[in-house]
Amino acid sequence: MAKITERSPLAPERFPDLPVIRGVRFATAAAGVRYAGRTDVMLAQLAPGSVVAGVFTRSTTRAAPVLDCQRKIAMESDDGAAILVNSGNANAFTGRAGDESVTAVTEAVAAAMDLPSERVFTSSTGVIGERLPHARIVAKVEELTGALDEGGIADAAHAIMTTDTFPKGASAKVHVNGGDVTIAGIAKGSGMVAPDMATMLVYVFTDAAMRRDDLQSLVSAAADRTFNCITVDSDTSTSDTLLMGATGASGVEVTAEDTAFAGALEEVFRDLAHQVVKDGEGATKFVTVEVTGAESDDDARTHAMAIANSPLVKTAIAGEDPNWGRIVMAIGKSGAAADRDRLSIRFGDVPVAEHGWVAESYREEMGAAQMQKPEITIGVDLGLGEGRATVWTCDLTHGYIAINADYRS
Amino acid sequence: MAKITERSPLAPERFPDLPVIRGVRFATAAAGVRYAGRTDVMLAQLAPGSVVAGVFTRSTTRAAPVLDCQRKIAMESDDGAAILVNSGNANAFTGRAGDESVTAVTEAVAAAMDLPSERVFTSSTGVIGERLPHARIVAKVEELTGALDEGGIADAAHAIMTTDTFPKGASAKVHVNGGDVTIAGIAKGSGMVAPDMATMLVYVFTDAAMRRDDLQSLVSAAADRTFNCITVDSDTSTSDTLLMGATGASGVEVTAEDTAFAGALEEVFRDLAHQVVKDGEGATKFVTVEVTGAESDDDARTHAMAIANSPLVKTAIAGEDPNWGRIVMAIGKSGAAADRDRLSIRFGDVPVAEHGWVAESYREEMGAAQMQKPEITIGVDLGLGEGRATVWTCDLTHGYIAINADYRS
Repeated sequence: MAKITERSPLAPERFPDLPVIRGVRFATAAAGVRYAGRTDVMLAQLAPGSVVAGVFTRSTTRAAPVLDCQRKIAMESDDGAAILVNSGNANAFTGRAGDESVTAVTEAVAAAMDLPSERVFTSSTGVIGERLPHARIVAKVEELTGALDEGGIADAAHAIMTTDTFPKGASAKVHVNGGDVTIAGIAKGSGMVAPDMATMLVYVFTDAAMRRDDLQSLVSAAADRTFNCITVDSDTSTSDTLLMGATGASGVEVTAEDTAFAGALEEVFRDLAHQVVKDGEGATKFVTVEVTGAESDDDARTHAMAIANSPLVKTAIAGEDPNWGRIVMAIGKSGAAADRDRLSIRFGDVPVAEHGWVAESYREEMGAAQMQKPEITIGVDLGLGEGRATVWTCDLTHGYIAINADYRS
Repeated sequence: MAKITERSPLAPERFPDLPVIRGVRFATAAAGVRYAGRTDVMLAQLAPGSVVAGVFTRSTTRAAPVLDCQRKIAMESDDGAAILVNSGNANAFTGRAGDESVTAVTEAVAAAMDLPSERVFTSSTGVIGERLPHARIVAKVEELTGALDEGGIADAAHAIMTTDTFPKGASAKVHVNGGDVTIAGIAKGSGMVAPDMATMLVYVFTDAAMRRDDLQSLVSAAADRTFNCITVDSDTSTSDTLLMGATGASGVEVTAEDTAFAGALEEVFRDLAHQVVKDGEGATKFVTVEVTGAESDDDARTHAMAIANSPLVKTAIAGEDPNWGRIVMAIGKSGAAADRDRLSIRFGDVPVAEHGWVAESYREEMGAAQMQKPEITIGVDLGLGEGRATVWTCDLTHGYIAINADYRS
């Protein structure tokens, strides 16, 4: 079996220097869950007093670790917390054995770190339908707890990769309520482990001092505008997980009303979300779809997602073809309100169609020039109201087919 | 520009011998709308006393001819009728000029055939966003009306093709109410004219004597179970049109309650619908998705369409990979009710997963053998209720990308 390891052409030049978040330590290990010769488990330890919030896949066939996290996430506790993530096996569609594996791992971590097991969160990503060889992970827990290090976040970003072509990290510092707080996060994205689907995992940390409810409400709102606005191929993983911990180590109190913090948090989320799209399977173009003038924000989002998920739009972008007819088609099929004769479309700042027909100023070569850029913006105005939405996607290429059809596990 | 003309590997051996439908005559012409050296206009004439029914795309950005047909379709009339179809230009997203073109064509046909223009139906398929050169079609109307022929249906099937790789036809004879009636139809499917999307056009005729309301109700019901249950890539054309005419020339009266006729009609529709899928862009596999045990028929359909439209499922099929994890994923994301631990999946008659985990009897090579067939059945039982649905689709291959990304107009 050949392997797809070429770095995405949209990858950033290098992994960013992420700041230390006081109160969080990381360790990684090579447990051999599926891969040999690389780390495949990461452990993050959050100091006592930390709060944890999360958002999870809406799939009805959620994996066992997701169900376990959802059960625990809203509990209040003064204890510390731990997050353990393995790559190589998703522990999804594994029946009752999947729950037993989660219990085995969380109890081992809880015992080693002197935590209640309700404070241990796990994620698994990789092959599905195969039993998680949890004993291999349990056997590494002592090594992991002995290696915990404030500076370990970059190694953690590597350990959670499946066939991501680059590790993903982002950070922000923000001055709020008279003090400085720091946010740093890592993610894995749409890399592929046949025969699994892509899973998005995101772990973000801050030293802000927060109530759990405040953190949850900020995380949910920011995820709605970032991670929930990206799509690679419209498919949804059984394992998507975002966990965020706030340690309070900065001593700076932050609430859900602190807009500077909320803005910085959203910026970190957006940066990570864009990196996930840029590592989309076979991606050669990063596409922003901006919809305005819809009857409502929900309608705008429906239109934007219909455009972003349309195979015909995505293949046109792959072919650098300024095929605005396919955008009209996607709007028409979305189900949300549209009036053909009020519709305007632009590529970047080039008006393409206005009032239901091609713009008088438009020439094919103007659209073609926009399409040749690595980052493309498709703008649509419905001319109906004030609803707006922005989503991000990538193109659909031979690379996607190669990754998902040509290579077997 | 290279052209994709290779015949689909799923194509039938040859075009079927379609019976004459008394009361219907056909003619074709080469109007040069866009293509040179081939016919691109077909005219069908229905005798006085015929009734016409239709179903149309639900797109909110419908093309001008579709809007015109929808306005006319429910009118009762004792006059004859005509259907004129051109390929090469879809007359879609052409603003008011699009309506003017429809008027020009329908009035020319009405005048030449001594019909009210309300009895002239048109369809256009091909490039969108460009004005229809309707004068070229109008110039051919006299030639067309002079050439009308009862035996012209096969030529008509050719004239409406865009980049379909084979013409599509189907027929049935049925004994009903003491007499024989005949049904014959043609279709064009998911061939592609860059920069257009695929459009499905279907024209079916019968010599049964029917009330218009009865014909419409049979056509709508049969289309729901056939043409509305196929998907190539989840995208919806602005021009999809099905028109059916009943001439009454057999003298056999048929109502919506005649189940033998309804069954024969549905069989013709299903045959044409399957041919459309088998000519799907880049298709190498014909896939039947059968969902049972859902909470409702609607839920079953939602699950079936989520599976049939999933790029990850479709690429797995292209790769002959028995990747049942992707089917679990598609069910999970569909939004309809599912319980992971009651779910069963089969490939053909091979049980793959039962009660939320891989079936004990299942071996990878059993699934792989199923995947190597040109026609594949994916069966899913939700274990929740009595809801069921069957949909048909094809795989997602390099051919699809080649047709839609590599070739520019």
